[in-house]
Amino acid sequence: MRIFETKTAPNARRVRMFLAEKRLLPDVEFVQVDIQSGENLTDAYKQKNVTTKIPVLELDDGTYIGESMAICRYFEALHPEPCLFGQTPKQQATIEMWQRRAEFHLLLPVGMCFQHTTGYFKDRMKPVAEYGEDCGRQALAFMESLNGHLASSAYLAGDQFSVADITALCAVDFARVVKLRPAPEWQHLQRWYQAVSARPSASC
Amino acid sequence: MRIFETKTAPNARRVRMFLAEKRLLPDVEFVQVDIQSGENLTDAYKQKNVTTKIPVLELDDGTYIGESMAICRYFEALHPEPCLFGQTPKQQATIEMWQRRAEFHLLLPVGMCFQHTTGYFKDRMKPVAEYGEDCGRQALAFMESLNGHLASSAYLAGDQFSVADITALCAVDFARVVKLRPAPEWQHLQRWYQAVSARPSASC
Repeated sequence: MRIFETKTAPNARRVRMFLAEKRLLPDVEFVQVDIQSGENLTDAYKQKNVTTKIPVLELDDGTYIGESMAICRYFEALHPEPCLFGQTPKQQATIEMWQRRAEFHLLLPVGMCFQHTTGYFKDRMKPVAEYGEDCGRQALAFMESLNGHLASSAYLAGDQFSVADITALCAVDFARVVKLRPAPEWQHLQRWYQAVSARPSASC
Repeated sequence: MRIFETKTAPNARRVRMFLAEKRLLPDVEFVQVDIQSGENLTDAYKQKNVTTKIPVLELDDGTYIGESMAICRYFEALHPEPCLFGQTPKQQATIEMWQRRAEFHLLLPVGMCFQHTTGYFKDRMKPVAEYGEDCGRQALAFMESLNGHLASSAYLAGDQFSVADITALCAVDFARVVKLRPAPEWQHLQRWYQAVSARPSASC
């Protein structure tokens, strides 16, 4: 079982952190893909993942699973403990809701801000700086709203750490690349950030 | 149990189609929200869904579940048959992969093309036409790539209809609003489109 990834990318970190929480990191071989030079745009890589994105999981039977959250769900289904996607229908829905909020309102706009304001991938896409800057503002607005939510919730989806916290942590850390940081006075977000960053899985 | 939605919106249709496949539509009351006039931007609505998006599910205990896919997963967990998110770990991961591909590479760019080229929500966001037009091109490119995939697959995630097909159908239909249509010569995509559109759930 192998994962093709780029170690510095936030989606790759999401999967590694998930596997570390499950104590499964030693079971997986990691193969680095140089996305900056476009190794992921080759026909060989597109055979693994038609979207050209990283990471992608290669199973022993030759099946490829792309999309970070699909990879995490594969491992959750095989190894339910510790549970990171929820148990009861309501817990599952609440975690999925917060995972997606963190993804669509934080990780995605941070990524768009990065791609559209730095020109990092300008050889393969058309950066629109005005859009990228607006995404940066959206990401900060969501962090502030999250601060309010965390005033009465230990983690994003309630009392228990979940995959939603993994997405949010990877997004907040990646946001530094475009100089977006939670304000020091957002004390609930800061408390959550310290707690989640201190988990051994956050350093993997 | 109630769902707050806007009947014409693609995410609302995803949830209704999912419920129709599960034969659960009669169990849910639907309340219309006028997003064009900004009813979703009021404090009363933000109490239901902090992101201001539709649809949102209200449970009988007062819990609100936002995010279409979180709502669908809630019903999948409560009513596993017919199974729309997969059974084995590999099926679950494959369906999640294709659901997300349809979402990030088709539904999202179609939505961005709509928002950034029509100015429909220009009272509450900053449309960047150049970005919107690029999103339209991305959506068409993904449809063409999907045509290739469907040459050897009955549905997006294999032999069985799944939630991934619901997302893709709602995206392809919504794309008409910005005049993006699958080319007639994309015969595999056309075959799939006819088959999925003919399901009773597609007309709900």
